Amino acid sequence: MADRGYLLTEPDLHALSIGAGILGTGGGGNPYQGMLRCRELMRGGAELRVIPIDALPDDALVAEVGGIGAPVVSIEKLREGRESLRAIRALEQETGIRIAATISAEIGGSNAMEPFIAAAHAGLPVVDGDGMGRAFPEVQMTTYFIYGQNPAPAAMADDKGNVVIFREIVDMYWLERLARDVAVGMGAAAMLATAPMRADFLRGAAIPGTVTQALTIGRAVLDARARRQDVLDRLAKVADARLMFTGRIIDVRRELKGGFARGHAVIEGHGAYAGQEARIAIQNENLVLWIDGAARVVVPDLIMNLVEETGEPITTEVLRYGQRVATIALPAHPLLKTPEALKVVGPAAFGYPDIPYNPL
Amino acid sequence: MADRGYLLTEPDLHALSIGAGILGTGGGGNPYQGMLRCRELMRGGAELRVIPIDALPDDALVAEVGGIGAPVVSIEKLREGRESLRAIRALEQETGIRIAATISAEIGGSNAMEPFIAAAHAGLPVVDGDGMGRAFPEVQMTTYFIYGQNPAPAAMADDKGNVVIFREIVDMYWLERLARDVAVGMGAAAMLATAPMRADFLRGAAIPGTVTQALTIGRAVLDARARRQDVLDRLAKVADARLMFTGRIIDVRRELKGGFARGHAVIEGHGAYAGQEARIAIQNENLVLWIDGAARVVVPDLIMNLVEETGEPITTEVLRYGQRVATIALPAHPLLKTPEALKVVGPAAFGYPDIPYNPL
Repeated sequence: MADRGYLLTEPDLHALSIGAGILGTGGGGNPYQGMLRCRELMRGGAELRVIPIDALPDDALVAEVGGIGAPVVSIEKLREGRESLRAIRALEQETGIRIAATISAEIGGSNAMEPFIAAAHAGLPVVDGDGMGRAFPEVQMTTYFIYGQNPAPAAMADDKGNVVIFREIVDMYWLERLARDVAVGMGAAAMLATAPMRADFLRGAAIPGTVTQALTIGRAVLDARARRQDVLDRLAKVADARLMFTGRIIDVRRELKGGFARGHAVIEGHGAYAGQEARIAIQNENLVLWIDGAARVVVPDLIMNLVEETGEPITTEVLRYGQRVATIALPAHPLLKTPEALKVVGPAAFGYPDIPYNPL
Repeated sequence: MADRGYLLTEPDLHALSIGAGILGTGGGGNPYQGMLRCRELMRGGAELRVIPIDALPDDALVAEVGGIGAPVVSIEKLREGRESLRAIRALEQETGIRIAATISAEIGGSNAMEPFIAAAHAGLPVVDGDGMGRAFPEVQMTTYFIYGQNPAPAAMADDKGNVVIFREIVDMYWLERLARDVAVGMGAAAMLATAPMRADFLRGAAIPGTVTQALTIGRAVLDARARRQDVLDRLAKVADARLMFTGRIIDVRRELKGGFARGHAVIEGHGAYAGQEARIAIQNENLVLWIDGAARVVVPDLIMNLVEETGEPITTEVLRYGQRVATIALPAHPLLKTPEALKVVGPAAFGYPDIPYNPL
């Protein structure tokens, strides 16, 4: 209980946004806007503290809060700023409890930042961990829900001042369905806080240390850039990232449907991969990587497109014809590979029942 | 305060469903299923009491409850039965108050029945009145909202057990938008209870006596049928209904869009109307009646298609090519004709800014 964690610095915010962008596996929204907001809060005097789960007593209650909607919308639609705070306050009002800390649902993308924004407004710390170790497109796809978080109560707030409570919800799939519909009504970008979780539950159900992991990845990228070293090489060393493919995008299909961006990208190999073709299936995030027709990396393992020279993550909504990309992969956390987890985040859950999950 | 109103009898239920169907102006959903459910509750010992608004003390709180969704779905999708009770209980829990009675949002169609179902389960009376005096397609189109009902809190329940609370809502249009999205998620049929209203507010804001009006209309139709008298003639006498057109439907267009049925019907005149053509614009309900190109009846005035011989109402979802219909009209209640009301339920609110509202 002595470990009070650490405070984020301004340079940390930049590193965190790069690391979170990479862990976003093509989705999760761009953390840039959230990074700017955190910086503004920090300059206004807010402390952004990261604590290990073990710093909290068993019965401390933690709120998972993050954005829900289409990443392609959240790039352009500005937030009001206190949406996630309003969602947390509504949860507290609904349950009569006080929240002790916030935690991210997904460390990948903009939802790495949102718990810090809410926590800064509320004067709370952020737990070092998340429920995905990456980004996923749907609400139920967290280790929290997979391992027993209640689907209700949950609270949702938008930039206009609307607050909706999901008071009784049949299961996590119904929460996803109804929250998604409300998100579309709220303009395809809103903040959702799900049922408060006890710290002792999170010790078993959260993927630990992922804020620190994102920081480590981001710092490695920034440092390699500054020293003009090979970024992919550094990522392999600090994060066990494996280079899978390099090439040029020769086809992209994207469709905004029910609040999701679905589609695929095709990459023509170059360098060591000349003559080969890669194909990536997308639902907000990169889901499956085929090389010459063979599935090589399959969800929940992580597939990421980066700018080869800079390590800058390329999200699925900005993929375009002619772009040069390096595709890297990371193994998913063991909590995502259990039989109960694969039912929720394995290939079949994304509409690929015929692709077996062979761990990276 | 001495007037304790009256109890509905089993034959009343039949009359009420016919009268409500006619006042549905083509929409509002078919009251038949709700009628059967009321009958079942009545046979199980429930009292269905109708009370005048004046029977309630000023500070008594009344809940408006009714279905939201697409009528075309609610014909086929069976209700679980206690949805509206769950919505009212959630409102009570949210506000810490007790509801003294229920009231209908719209006397036209299935929402004439729903307050009785909720009231029978809760052991409460139903206020003789409603917020439309007819049916309208959207949540904000009630005299309650027009004259100041709060947009929040409102509660929504479905047949599965999901309950959603609209805790803070910017205005009545946002309630419509978000409730509509949730309704679609809930399978295009759910029950919505809006913010509790004080009896003294309702004395100025509700359209009084419309349960009794629907009963009167239904009884007139049933009695005329039994005596083999002219139904349209009787409706003219008891309800001031004006015959506008008789003919045969030669074209129907319907589209289910965002939870609404939109379209139009074209009627070729016969009898006294031979050689003339009528056209009716539809959004769930009949909105505008043109005869030979001239707008003759305009929303909020009531336009109703009936089977000429029986007075049976023909809802817009069952209009079909070749059908013979009599089109009648009724003037809207004065509360719907004020400048503030016309902003919400006049022709411009339905996308006809160029059609002036000339009261019938």
